Amino acid sequence: MQKQNRRKFIATAAALAAVPAIFGQLDQKNKKEPMIHHVFFWLKNAGSQADRQQLIEGLKTLSAIKAVKKLLIGTPAATEQRGVVDNSYDVSELMYFDNIEGQNAYQVDPIHKTFVEKYSHLWEKVVVYDMQVI
Amino acid sequence: MQKQNRRKFIATAAALAAVPAIFGQLDQKNKKEPMIHHVFFWLKNAGSQADRQQLIEGLKTLSAIKAVKKLLIGTPAATEQRGVVDNSYDVSELMYFDNIEGQNAYQVDPIHKTFVEKYSHLWEKVVVYDMQVI
Repeated sequence: MQKQNRRKFIATAAALAAVPAIFGQLDQKNKKEPMIHHVFFWLKNAGSQADRQQLIEGLKTLSAIKAVKKLLIGTPAATEQRGVVDNSYDVSELMYFDNIEGQNAYQVDPIHKTFVEKYSHLWEKVVVYDMQVI
Repeated sequence: MQKQNRRKFIATAAALAAVPAIFGQLDQKNKKEPMIHHVFFWLKNAGSQADRQQLIEGLKTLSAIKAVKKLLIGTPAATEQRGVVDNSYDVSELMYFDNIEGQNAYQVDPIHKTFVEKYSHLWEKVVVYDMQVI
């Protein structure tokens, strides 16, 4: 093999070797596993049914945000109180987004901002878990 | 209307008036809002890709449990690091059950017990949130 040809061969071989990796990346990118955004709220008036209901009504408005693909709202389930179970929160929201970009868009959406303005006086603590489904 | 008939009429009217309320209660009871069981794991070897993968493989076995209606496994999403976001965990599992009884059955299922036996050496901390969707 001439020097010139050998160079070409090596370049082509390297390019071909990279193909599966590139397709792997595309696959990963096109994979539609959702991103989960799970938020737990602790009310200032812990245990207040009225405040809890008000917060739930507020949370329901968030389903109008385009990036929010699914919204579940809940309260602690009456499962066995084992040491590892944290059932001290008052209200929880569980959202599905298509991806991180969806969650980012949600954070700055006017409906979300209005929700925070109108309802944030109700809670004293929030914990958020963002989870990429694999 | 004779006295006897009037009594019957009143009793029938009262019974009929109660029907929507009874059906409402049944509707509520038959409503199939799921119970969500969301577990976060912190590995002993925090950040170990090998241990993370091993735990994920273990978690996948849990989908064979009849009471588990849906299982999502994930890792922290690369969302903005705001103060309220806890992205310190290594792996998370999100399960749907039909109800609390389903979750109770899951806890004592042999597949779950085997999972705990085989994989609990991997984690140093677990936090569980059980949420009744409303």
